[in-house]
Amino acid sequence: MREPLQKHDEVRSIARAIADTYGKLVPKLQHLAPAPLPDRNAVIRIVDELLQAIYPGYFGAKSVLPDNVVEHLSGLLDGVYERLTEEIYRSIRSDRTSLRKDWPHCRAIAADHALDLLGRIPDLRRRLAHDVQAGYDGDPAAKGTDEVIFAYPAIYAISVFRIAHELSGMGVPLLPRIMTEYAHSRTGVDIHPGADIGKGFFIDHGTGVVIGETTRIGDNVKLYQGVTLGALSFPKDDAGKIVRGRKRHPTIEDDVVIYAGATILGGDTVIGQGSVIGGNVWLTKSVPPHTKVMNARPELVIDHKR
Amino acid sequence: MREPLQKHDEVRSIARAIADTYGKLVPKLQHLAPAPLPDRNAVIRIVDELLQAIYPGYFGAKSVLPDNVVEHLSGLLDGVYERLTEEIYRSIRSDRTSLRKDWPHCRAIAADHALDLLGRIPDLRRRLAHDVQAGYDGDPAAKGTDEVIFAYPAIYAISVFRIAHELSGMGVPLLPRIMTEYAHSRTGVDIHPGADIGKGFFIDHGTGVVIGETTRIGDNVKLYQGVTLGALSFPKDDAGKIVRGRKRHPTIEDDVVIYAGATILGGDTVIGQGSVIGGNVWLTKSVPPHTKVMNARPELVIDHKR
Amino acid sequence: MREPLQKHDEVRSIARAIADTYGKLVPKLQHLAPAPLPDRNAVIRIVDELLQAIYPGYFGAKSVLPDNVVEHLSGLLDGVYERLTEEIYRSIRSDRTSLRKDWPHCRAIAADHALDLLGRIPDLRRRLAHDVQAGYDGDPAAKGTDEVIFAYPAIYAISVFRIAHELSGMGVPLLPRIMTEYAHSRTGVDIHPGADIGKGFFIDHGTGVVIGETTRIGDNVKLYQGVTLGALSFPKDDAGKIVRGRKRHPTIEDDVVIYAGATILGGDTVIGQGSVIGGNVWLTKSVPPHTKVMNARPELVIDHKR
Repeated sequence: MREPLQKHDEVRSIARAIADTYGKLVPKLQHLAPAPLPDRNAVIRIVDELLQAIYPGYFGAKSVLPDNVVEHLSGLLDGVYERLTEEIYRSIRSDRTSLRKDWPHCRAIAADHALDLLGRIPDLRRRLAHDVQAGYDGDPAAKGTDEVIFAYPAIYAISVFRIAHELSGMGVPLLPRIMTEYAHSRTGVDIHPGADIGKGFFIDHGTGVVIGETTRIGDNVKLYQGVTLGALSFPKDDAGKIVRGRKRHPTIEDDVVIYAGATILGGDTVIGQGSVIGGNVWLTKSVPPHTKVMNARPELVIDHKR
Repeated sequence: MREPLQKHDEVRSIARAIADTYGKLVPKLQHLAPAPLPDRNAVIRIVDELLQAIYPGYFGAKSVLPDNVVEHLSGLLDGVYERLTEEIYRSIRSDRTSLRKDWPHCRAIAADHALDLLGRIPDLRRRLAHDVQAGYDGDPAAKGTDEVIFAYPAIYAISVFRIAHELSGMGVPLLPRIMTEYAHSRTGVDIHPGADIGKGFFIDHGTGVVIGETTRIGDNVKLYQGVTLGALSFPKDDAGKIVRGRKRHPTIEDDVVIYAGATILGGDTVIGQGSVIGGNVWLTKSVPPHTKVMNARPELVIDHKR
Repeated sequence: MREPLQKHDEVRSIARAIADTYGKLVPKLQHLAPAPLPDRNAVIRIVDELLQAIYPGYFGAKSVLPDNVVEHLSGLLDGVYERLTEEIYRSIRSDRTSLRKDWPHCRAIAADHALDLLGRIPDLRRRLAHDVQAGYDGDPAAKGTDEVIFAYPAIYAISVFRIAHELSGMGVPLLPRIMTEYAHSRTGVDIHPGADIGKGFFIDHGTGVVIGETTRIGDNVKLYQGVTLGALSFPKDDAGKIVRGRKRHPTIEDDVVIYAGATILGGDTVIGQGSVIGGNVWLTKSVPPHTKVMNARPELVIDHKR
């Protein structure tokens, strides 16, 4: 076996070989600037603490009582404010497409955005109460709303989405996407922070759901696991590069139910109010309100082995 | 940028605005009672430690040797007993549908349930040995049972399910569901703790599998990723509310194989012994024993671009 | 309620009952040998640190600057080398199918493999740069390559796969599979470390993707969520046991796109260069180059409720 010293020298020469690849790769895989990128672990902590502020007594271990609640929330939000300002600042500074490169200005903008987000928590709570109620109403296995808040991945994913969507609407880059991807990792539900989702939204089971960036969803919509609201195809420009920034994902009107595994694609596709889309249906065009769409079930080949 | 003092005042006024929403939302999103709700992190720790007791030397870092194993297990289980009693107690107390509101009595019940669960570990080990063997027998990629225990998400999900199912059978609310949702989050496999699953059960790959609350599964059943054993529709009562508590999910008899993406729905649907259900099949009615069901494959539209 | 002493005695007798099941279960669920099995938490730490070495400034909190980068990498890799040597050693020693049971020799082999892997990081970086570029080029929602590295589960899963694949190619058992299952748990993307994947590989969204052990994938291939590249059936030997170790999974040639939910099965199935496989297509036979395969969409049953 190698001697420790020899080993250390070999590791050092590998470190040099790695450093030698800097500046030679496109795209670059290292970020060696004085302005650090957002810190994923800090973002996860922010998400956890925001959920503690939204659902006190559910998320977070600390016992909260009516007579200490303002004190408790103030302490919690003081910390969130600091961390959120820092991560928004890093996100803005590292945004190569942004013109906001005036650093002190960036920090002030970040602080404003952070305080702005905290100020929206009461309204977020109002909207999430509708989502929790929709979860309870929509699932006969739910024993109470406690269980829905505690143990339903959809509530977790929708809560994080609604936070990230606010930041996305303020024009904060990177950070909202890191938040929703953390929720995707925990729940299997992939909602792009740019999507626009009405009140009383519920997703049962959730794993495999994909909701694209320019999707619009009305009120009281319910999805099941494995539903894709996606893009049909990507127009390319004259240079063969994908055109970014146009509506590519469908519009789902109020009171629609979409069963497991259904795929609905295209920016011009509108699912009319009150429609029901059956399991595994593949739809690339609009349907009028109050339509029920199901696959003509494929004929089953049934073979009795004995 | 804001001065620190000014910022602190603004955060405090946001905290007050959040507290002002308490009592005004339905359902409520805060739990401000002296009896705290279960602590998800404590539940995760309990799950991890129970897996260490079930699979010593596999889960957990500590080296266990034959001559210290009883000492090791005693120490481990002493801690689990304390934590499990606390979390069962919290679950029972916070259960709004429960009539067991006599607090000291609740704590004694919780302690009994905790000890009862620990006493079932030898039997759980016997059943899980069958599941591990089924995993090895069912997957040509498995190099040995070590790999199955270590790296197969199905074994993780099934182990946690079997623990949670025991607690669910004792009538413990909330806690079993928090356990199985933790496993769902880690594995993509969503098994409701109320399901009834026989011996030698295996799920290959696992992501996207959903097994509903009232599903019954016999012995030696094998599922692939993306299989749903779900509900067909939810009857509603006169007030338009979903009727809870009846059998809504299918029965799968012994020796059945269900391939990836198949969906089987309905409380009266029975898949007879020894049947094989093909990939992506959608079934809402029973099939007799030894039946092979496959989709008549949709005609493929094949277009040679050159 | 039980007295503490009585409770402790009961826990101890449960511990004895658990220990009594040792030696009586097949397969065994305990590992009580002096040579410990790999430690999953240590493996996760190794993965995290290798990603910090591959993507400095993206993964890991520490700020890295051009003039401290070699120092930083040396320190990081010194630690990875120690931990990786230990976990490779444990993997080799616990491999029951391995003949390499000469312990001191095992440790030297482990140290060689660990250093060998670290030495391949520059080349891994080159290949991963192609994957990151493919992610950016393939998704109109991507705002920049920073976002692709930070927030795309596919990049995480592919990075861990490429590390695990190197170890798998050296013949290290167990460890590569623990690595890719950790990535599967975080991303919903299940890539077996034995698969062979060319450059510029991308998976959009990712949840539910399964890529089997003997799959071969060419350059510039793009998959969507829920794609399975799997086995068709498992031949059994005369004793009724599954035959292990032959090519069971498909070959995907260069420049192929496979849309969401498609399933391609079988070791002899070859998808020719430049082909496009549509969503939900189920394929068990080869198609020539430049073929477009889509389901003849099932007739939709459309019912206007009003």
